[in-house]
Amino acid sequence: MAKHTSKNSIPAQALALHKKLRGKIRIEPALKVKDRAALSLVYTPGVAAVSTHVAKRPGEARDYTIKGRMVAVISDGSAVLGLGNIGALGALPVMEGKCALFKTFANVDAFPIVLDTQDTEKVIEAVLAVAPAFGGINLEDFAAPRCFEIEARLKEKLDIPVMHDDQHGTAIAVLAGLINAAKVARKKLPELRVVISGAGAAGTAIAKLFLLAGIRDIIVLDSKGTITHGREGLAGHKLELSEATNPRAVAGGLDEALRGADVFIGVSGPNLMNASHVRRMAEKPIVFAMANPTPEIMPEEAKKGGAYIVATGRSDFPNQINNSLVFPGVFRGALDRRVPKITDEMKLRAAKNLAALVARPTPDKIVPDPFDRRVAPAVAKAIR
Amino acid sequence: MAKHTSKNSIPAQALALHKKLRGKIRIEPALKVKDRAALSLVYTPGVAAVSTHVAKRPGEARDYTIKGRMVAVISDGSAVLGLGNIGALGALPVMEGKCALFKTFANVDAFPIVLDTQDTEKVIEAVLAVAPAFGGINLEDFAAPRCFEIEARLKEKLDIPVMHDDQHGTAIAVLAGLINAAKVARKKLPELRVVISGAGAAGTAIAKLFLLAGIRDIIVLDSKGTITHGREGLAGHKLELSEATNPRAVAGGLDEALRGADVFIGVSGPNLMNASHVRRMAEKPIVFAMANPTPEIMPEEAKKGGAYIVATGRSDFPNQINNSLVFPGVFRGALDRRVPKITDEMKLRAAKNLAALVARPTPDKIVPDPFDRRVAPAVAKAIR
Repeated sequence: MAKHTSKNSIPAQALALHKKLRGKIRIEPALKVKDRAALSLVYTPGVAAVSTHVAKRPGEARDYTIKGRMVAVISDGSAVLGLGNIGALGALPVMEGKCALFKTFANVDAFPIVLDTQDTEKVIEAVLAVAPAFGGINLEDFAAPRCFEIEARLKEKLDIPVMHDDQHGTAIAVLAGLINAAKVARKKLPELRVVISGAGAAGTAIAKLFLLAGIRDIIVLDSKGTITHGREGLAGHKLELSEATNPRAVAGGLDEALRGADVFIGVSGPNLMNASHVRRMAEKPIVFAMANPTPEIMPEEAKKGGAYIVATGRSDFPNQINNSLVFPGVFRGALDRRVPKITDEMKLRAAKNLAALVARPTPDKIVPDPFDRRVAPAVAKAIR
Repeated sequence: MAKHTSKNSIPAQALALHKKLRGKIRIEPALKVKDRAALSLVYTPGVAAVSTHVAKRPGEARDYTIKGRMVAVISDGSAVLGLGNIGALGALPVMEGKCALFKTFANVDAFPIVLDTQDTEKVIEAVLAVAPAFGGINLEDFAAPRCFEIEARLKEKLDIPVMHDDQHGTAIAVLAGLINAAKVARKKLPELRVVISGAGAAGTAIAKLFLLAGIRDIIVLDSKGTITHGREGLAGHKLELSEATNPRAVAGGLDEALRGADVFIGVSGPNLMNASHVRRMAEKPIVFAMANPTPEIMPEEAKKGGAYIVATGRSDFPNQINNSLVFPGVFRGALDRRVPKITDEMKLRAAKNLAALVARPTPDKIVPDPFDRRVAPAVAKAIR
């Protein structure tokens, strides 16, 4: 653990940097208020005309206020990174970071709101209560299965886009990577046999988006093994998954699921697999081991088992599949075109646009770099 | 109405400016995220160390997150400026303006939250839910009497300062003005006879702060006339006022109240008074006609009636008494010293500090200019 306690370790550097910054975002006035004339326009008495105008024509709020540019990044801290349920304050540094990336990658103004409640009804009420000032809502790090109900009910009640990024941002990034990985391996998307380890927010959304993309043979595993039609005790999203996936009704665990699989997608936990698991897979196995910070299998070990393409969520290996490729562009597009909902078609298009940015994909380059300036505009173009 | 429809009128200019700006505040990252190294510190994986640290030591959240610098400016739009109940979106331009002033005058980062509910319980729940990311809460434009309960209950439940600015910001600014006005008129504060027209948020808070400042003879009027001990139908804050004010038990309306009064404070509505009202007052009458944009009596008319000192809320007359003199400094001080509550002693001190900035007050100069750079620090010094 010396790495983690030394002054130059990433955790130590991150702590020092955060203490220096004391918050990763700042509020800046769009206009310097430097004299009484400016004051009388941005504040009283001039602002009264704007308030009256907007109150009468709420549809024009986006033209006169921050509603046209501002996204809320909202979390209840119930499933933060790989850290679990660490609550509102624990989630705040992540949400601030996300807001900084929104601006950096897509010039989206975003503000972090961390909720002092994890009660589903109270979360929904709080988000509805604060919604008026925002043009979009990015839900973040809400635990499954509450995340599904929270997102669905907010989408139904609000006329601004609501997206749980752990679900859809991840799913879009993963599908983009898979489109290019299949291309490199000369396999056809609809013919792939896919195993997804993890039936939480990310695993469920990935399975759904893969189905929409035409992939038919998907097995999802939770901690009890493969999710099969008729498995006892299934409810909610897992019941849905059991009806829509696993057409060959494969029972058992990872060993059984991986037999002959083309693709492994890990969105579960560290160190689930070793080289021998990969050897059970079909030719040219594609392994996305996305658990953070420790993947389901380390790239070296996966290669030892014969993996043809390996991707992780980490920046220190090739093929970093991270939703920072996705969320800035999604909300940039949503704000620009004032779309009321992020639809399935938009998500599919976003994945394809993202994949298309890699002109000649190779085993070590299936997704664009997050600092590639074409990324956000390409994703934004899909949101229409 | 030509003034209001011409291209150069303040309303027309304000509308054009707001349409151009599309929101008066922007979010800026505190650090440019320009490469993978920066990304790995402000976001994953480095941020995990910060989240873990803060989750374990919530008391240090102010050292590592925006909680140490960020104020929420929250409104339900139920009593906006002189416009009344125009709802959340109507309130948003005012709250954005306030956030711009927070930064301009006191380098406080502030973010506007407008609530899609005016139910007292739901307002309180929403504010409690979003509170964790903030180091202070400025309540704004909540209608009386709900504003009193909302503020009181939030103060009780939160360990960060909560201030309803329409009450206390206004009261502090008015007391500062009165301290200097009394000095100019060579009258002693405890001996003043004061009439306050308006028993809403501002009038009630002004009466309470005046009592704390040692003023004993205060008559408050609502739409039914003077508030007297035992008047029928009084409840809540008006019942309290009836017990604490009007020691001479003056019954009747403005005519009766003003007889022999040294000071008139108007926080009610336009055009209530004319010169003959001022003539009923004592020698060297002090008239603060603060209704916005149209005062209870225009300065010219007040002077005609013999007013010695006239103040308004407007920037186009001398003696503008506006809470922008107060709120930036109050929260600057509260953040700097991490005070959990704004106490009565702090408010009194703030008014005195503000008054003291005018070294030699005159009838036309009883409060400092809002652009005087000494204002926010002087007020901030009082918050300890």
